[in-house]
Amino acid sequence: MLEQLAHLGRDPETGGYVRDAWSEADLELREWFAGEAGRRRLTLREDRNGNLWAWWGTPSPERPGVVTGSHLDSVRQGGAYDGPLGVVSAFAALDLLRERHVTPSVPLGVACFTDEEGARFGVPCVGSRLLTGVLPPERALALTDDDGDTLADVLKRAGRRPGGLGRDDETLAAVGTFVELHVEQGRGLVTEGRPVGVASAIWPHGRWRFDFRGRADHAGTTRLADRDDPMLPLARMVLAAREAAERRGVVATIGKVRVSPGNANAIPGLASAWLDARGADEDAVRALVAELSEGAQVREESWTPVVAFDTALRDRIARAAGGDTPAPILPTGAGHDAGILAAAGVPSAMLFVRNPTGVSHSPSEHAERADCEAGVVALADVLEELCR
Amino acid sequence: MLEQLAHLGRDPETGGYVRDAWSEADLELREWFAGEAGRRRLTLREDRNGNLWAWWGTPSPERPGVVTGSHLDSVRQGGAYDGPLGVVSAFAALDLLRERHVTPSVPLGVACFTDEEGARFGVPCVGSRLLTGVLPPERALALTDDDGDTLADVLKRAGRRPGGLGRDDETLAAVGTFVELHVEQGRGLVTEGRPVGVASAIWPHGRWRFDFRGRADHAGTTRLADRDDPMLPLARMVLAAREAAERRGVVATIGKVRVSPGNANAIPGLASAWLDARGADEDAVRALVAELSEGAQVREESWTPVVAFDTALRDRIARAAGGDTPAPILPTGAGHDAGILAAAGVPSAMLFVRNPTGVSHSPSEHAERADCEAGVVALADVLEELCR
Repeated sequence: MLEQLAHLGRDPETGGYVRDAWSEADLELREWFAGEAGRRRLTLREDRNGNLWAWWGTPSPERPGVVTGSHLDSVRQGGAYDGPLGVVSAFAALDLLRERHVTPSVPLGVACFTDEEGARFGVPCVGSRLLTGVLPPERALALTDDDGDTLADVLKRAGRRPGGLGRDDETLAAVGTFVELHVEQGRGLVTEGRPVGVASAIWPHGRWRFDFRGRADHAGTTRLADRDDPMLPLARMVLAAREAAERRGVVATIGKVRVSPGNANAIPGLASAWLDARGADEDAVRALVAELSEGAQVREESWTPVVAFDTALRDRIARAAGGDTPAPILPTGAGHDAGILAAAGVPSAMLFVRNPTGVSHSPSEHAERADCEAGVVALADVLEELCR
Repeated sequence: MLEQLAHLGRDPETGGYVRDAWSEADLELREWFAGEAGRRRLTLREDRNGNLWAWWGTPSPERPGVVTGSHLDSVRQGGAYDGPLGVVSAFAALDLLRERHVTPSVPLGVACFTDEEGARFGVPCVGSRLLTGVLPPERALALTDDDGDTLADVLKRAGRRPGGLGRDDETLAAVGTFVELHVEQGRGLVTEGRPVGVASAIWPHGRWRFDFRGRADHAGTTRLADRDDPMLPLARMVLAAREAAERRGVVATIGKVRVSPGNANAIPGLASAWLDARGADEDAVRALVAELSEGAQVREESWTPVVAFDTALRDRIARAAGGDTPAPILPTGAGHDAGILAAAGVPSAMLFVRNPTGVSHSPSEHAERADCEAGVVALADVLEELCR
């Protein structure tokens, strides 16, 4: 199935994927999801926030379902596995359960969350955050992309109703348990020598925008002493972030920079940098940001406290997924929709599939075919256990 | 006349101008030029490289003309004076000569050079460089803008013939002398207490693109020790450029940065910075670039050696423009079409009009109305002297 998607949103030059939320590639991916649901005679629903659900059986508040899935959008120039592997494995695990003639005692759902990566509007997990009410709809609708279009504009253009956005208790009540399968974004399973693992917790993480204001002026005629060049504090912040992250045992990344007006022959008037910071210790992450913010103009764009997954569920899943020996349990530095649901009180868990290089958010992200198949079997085993 | 242009390409939010070459705003500015030429019964010509010429009289190789003018495009978020002041003053000076009933002994031309700033394609003075053969047409045609369109594409869309580009001896032979009036881009005339000055030389200057390659990866799951993050060498280069410029007595600016893929939650794979370096001493500029280039991947995008304007012409102009006391003579760190023509052997000179703040390439660039009028009178005096 992953091969059917291989061409969608692929940059032929780099081999990287660009699948922004609500872009043409994303709409085609959503069509593909609808087709797979139809072929399996599942009931397709798009909730008010644009998340897709394909149900085997009909959930109700009295009889909530077991749901698995992930997302289909990507970071820009991302890989083929982050997101799609979880959705494709969900459909494949469902096929396997049917082959095994399993009759689930509760409804079984496949989910596809909207705009998990936040590549277009800068805020990740928009679909699950809106669903759980963590992201206020008025803030979401006002988010703008690089062309200056708001999410409200973009939704209207895609034929959706911006007014419908917001916390959706009815949809949420249908999710009794959520299990997300994901390609691992580190080399933990390589070290363990196992194809599949289970998540223990998601590190606290956040995103901050630093704006450095200076005075735009001519690059040739302005004396160094007369300059107010915002590139200098930006460069100092980039170096300080790395140094402070090492000192505090966390990670800090500046992956996005905007310099305006952006003329090679003019001192810029404004230089902005986005800081992504995460770590096992929330206080250390907070202290790093406080240290870098001194004297700077900083806006917090997102913040997710530590998410520890339900331990009973985690152990049950590790046993079901592991075959003879329980699957290894690993923490992760990456945010996921499963973390958003867990924080909202939905019993949630994650399965990881081994990534030989550990690289992700890049075209070189990879998982071996045999490991992907092992992931599908483990997911089917977990669903069978949960649907008993 | 400047007021007629005030709305074209103006960003209503910032008050800055965005007049990229061959953009809609630029095409409207070219139309305006044609209209002004027509109203004065001047003969309008667009040469093969897209430069505009409005002639009073017919120049020939045996009887070349005196030409004045500048450019109408702008840097992004630039001011209203850099470029347009020279073109508007050219038409106004011609009007003044007619009011004075001057009959020029040689043809008089008003010129508008194409894409002086290089805001769209990254190379400045494209029109005059093509005209004089300094920029090979095949290189110019392959230049790309931010949308990935080549200059060839853009010219075709504007109804021009890309095949016509290149050195144009016929057009060049018509220019006996060139005088460019320009708003000053420093505070030299403020210090002198004079409204109008004359250029002595243009500093040697160039533009270099630095590409720092790293490995794109996940911002949360990649250990600091495993990272190859190109933002770090970029930040070090920005700080080193300022330090080296101070030490060597030149100026260095990083005004344009591109980080890709540019996801806030991913370590970038490539970070590029454009260095603009200039100074009175060519060796010092070269040494600065060599120092910063160590271990980096660097491409020279443009280089203009020092241009010393014709001293006899300069002194003649300073006398004509100054009234009782010759106008002050000042060097400049900015590149201009007059510099390109001078380097190609055309006797050229520049007049500067006082800029109270010294700021340019910014919406706060300014010249007082009285000083602009003094500039027109000085330019008319100079043209009258040269056409005698």
